[in-house]
Amino acid sequence: MTFEEKLQEYAKVAIKIGVRLRKGQKLQISCPIECVEFGRVLAKQGYDAGASDVIMDFHDEVSNLIRYENAPDSAFETYPNYNVVKSNELLDEDVAFIAIAATNPELLKSVDVKRISTWNKVSSTAMSRRRNALMKNENKWLVVTAPTKVIAKKIFPNATDDEAVKLQWDAIFKAVRVDNGDGVANWEQHIQNLKKYVNFLNDNKFKTLHYTTKDGATDLTIELPKEHIWAGGGDTTTKDEYFCANLPTEEVYTMPHKNKVNGIVKNSKPFNYNGNLIDGFTLTFKDGKIVDFTADTGYDVLKEMLTMDDGASYLGEVALVPNDSPISNSNLTYFNTLFDENASCHLAFGKAYPTNLINGSSMTDKQLEEKGANMSLIHEDFMIGSPDLDILGTTYDGKEIQIFKNGNFTF
Amino acid sequence: MTFEEKLQEYAKVAIKIGVRLRKGQKLQISCPIECVEFGRVLAKQGYDAGASDVIMDFHDEVSNLIRYENAPDSAFETYPNYNVVKSNELLDEDVAFIAIAATNPELLKSVDVKRISTWNKVSSTAMSRRRNALMKNENKWLVVTAPTKVIAKKIFPNATDDEAVKLQWDAIFKAVRVDNGDGVANWEQHIQNLKKYVNFLNDNKFKTLHYTTKDGATDLTIELPKEHIWAGGGDTTTKDEYFCANLPTEEVYTMPHKNKVNGIVKNSKPFNYNGNLIDGFTLTFKDGKIVDFTADTGYDVLKEMLTMDDGASYLGEVALVPNDSPISNSNLTYFNTLFDENASCHLAFGKAYPTNLINGSSMTDKQLEEKGANMSLIHEDFMIGSPDLDILGTTYDGKEIQIFKNGNFTF
Repeated sequence: MTFEEKLQEYAKVAIKIGVRLRKGQKLQISCPIECVEFGRVLAKQGYDAGASDVIMDFHDEVSNLIRYENAPDSAFETYPNYNVVKSNELLDEDVAFIAIAATNPELLKSVDVKRISTWNKVSSTAMSRRRNALMKNENKWLVVTAPTKVIAKKIFPNATDDEAVKLQWDAIFKAVRVDNGDGVANWEQHIQNLKKYVNFLNDNKFKTLHYTTKDGATDLTIELPKEHIWAGGGDTTTKDEYFCANLPTEEVYTMPHKNKVNGIVKNSKPFNYNGNLIDGFTLTFKDGKIVDFTADTGYDVLKEMLTMDDGASYLGEVALVPNDSPISNSNLTYFNTLFDENASCHLAFGKAYPTNLINGSSMTDKQLEEKGANMSLIHEDFMIGSPDLDILGTTYDGKEIQIFKNGNFTF
Repeated sequence: MTFEEKLQEYAKVAIKIGVRLRKGQKLQISCPIECVEFGRVLAKQGYDAGASDVIMDFHDEVSNLIRYENAPDSAFETYPNYNVVKSNELLDEDVAFIAIAATNPELLKSVDVKRISTWNKVSSTAMSRRRNALMKNENKWLVVTAPTKVIAKKIFPNATDDEAVKLQWDAIFKAVRVDNGDGVANWEQHIQNLKKYVNFLNDNKFKTLHYTTKDGATDLTIELPKEHIWAGGGDTTTKDEYFCANLPTEEVYTMPHKNKVNGIVKNSKPFNYNGNLIDGFTLTFKDGKIVDFTADTGYDVLKEMLTMDDGASYLGEVALVPNDSPISNSNLTYFNTLFDENASCHLAFGKAYPTNLINGSSMTDKQLEEKGANMSLIHEDFMIGSPDLDILGTTYDGKEIQIFKNGNFTF
């Protein structure tokens, strides 16, 4: 297949598997300016699939950096109302959302962390309705990526700019299963495989997951709410439409009980938090809360994030990804959560997906919390999977089942 | 001066002379993605001048073309409310607006003109408040340009892509007077020069202007409203702040009486109407209205534009630009109204600037119309100046004064 054929196939998978666009549905594409060529291909495929309109929203991270470096403090203290109005109108119109995520992980490393955390909090608060709606699957949404020179060079530091971008495209095409034959058919098959893991985990009704690594750096016990649901390989909206929110996706995931996580965990891949890299970190949990933490890189940023609100220092997601997933087998670090989380077991700081509880999408926040779901302005995945990770599950019946051995599913 | 120095100076002139940004004022930059580097420099200069925030709004004309070519008809029949909300909030906040105008003049040449005119009408109608506010100088606004490969190659067809862009930058730097010394000081001087023409024209209280060319292609008489005002070299907002809405600007302009234009006029440079080129056209006026027209290129587009609303086939502006202006002396056609209108006497289809009548900014539409001001959803300049254009003025006192001879001011 030529580059152009793979690019078209990638966009087709995004439209047909990712947001599974309905004829007559509107599509919004949030696109870094550097990824415009992929954005245009997505738009064209959207129209080919019957989009009633495609809204292109471009942003430029360098302009964002200029703002962080030069605007007065006051600029970060209020969020434009018109952005909220737009977001609400698009939610009301049942628009399908595609975001091309491609942030330079070191973009903001020289920026005052207080300024970043103020803006993150202000914008997250203003955009609560959107976050809640998407985490309840009220609308179809999708995160994909495309190369940028900066990221490509970080992944492939010894290649020239152009070669690095080409290599990143190759890695993406492989990870999103469009390098070989019919991408949509490949995905239908892959989704079936993920559903097998989902069914196994749901059938066994696990109460606790005990994570250990041979070096002792990780020794963590996570209790799951009684009514938890494992999901993976796509979701169903509250309007009963299938979609798949991440391309690629290799994970099966559920929610932990917010107050029932204990022990210590060490990350295994760098965590890109909105343009800041956090790495070499350990988290110590007591009754769900992070009571101590260390970090070789990005300690201050991590500290700001964990104190953004009460729920930021509790967990909202538990996800299992075998260590021999295609992305993991590439042996690359992508500095992009979308890829790195799909190469590695991960957890998430912050808000839990209501969809990971039986009837969760129709519960109030209070009801969700009573069942053990964490609430927060943030939801940030971080990677903990490694070739020596074991996970022992104990079911609500008291049966012990080895779920992971040496970084992979045992079944 | 290095390229970088000229670029910074250009941005500084835009901020300090163009929108004359007030400390604490917010700035919006409307930027084609291809012009992002200039957009970033503008943003940085905006912050240096004390901007309270800079809103970057990017757009991509190729995405726009994809939409025109692929979206269903219904997409062009309604305008998103959230765009109107944003526009209104920015007007209310007294934001200063900079638009980088760089449209490929042939972008839409293969698109159905009905579709374009529907969208132009729908969007212009929705954005009426913004157009009216800016044409009354309620807010400070500025149009500038920057090169794009497509336009650069159209201006310099024999150069390579990179050379053409470089040549276009050189032409822009020269036209905006930043290629030589202190750009802001150059502009202060230039504005004084334009004010001399403005004063001469206002002092003489002209009743009619009679345009003729030696070949007879143009023979047009335009009557001016009794209370007309000539303007040029910058304006003053209704809040009494000076700004200069175009960089470059070489024109002095007023409004014609909408019902008192008679004769024929031929254009002298191609007219880029939102991505369509109209050229080789003649217009025949009777009592202000275009009653007949021809065009070698873009006849259908011109026809759609003239029938968009009642006022589209009447004139809203009369502008005088000497044929030996710096832009004109470059002997280039820029395919960009911002430049070409400042190389040539021009007229505008559509709405008149209320500021071109005594107390016009505080009049209702009805009052403006009674004084002779045209109303329309459009305001589109087209070029008629040439080296053999003569303009004879007759004052309200009946005195005849030759204003232009062979394309230049006689005084």
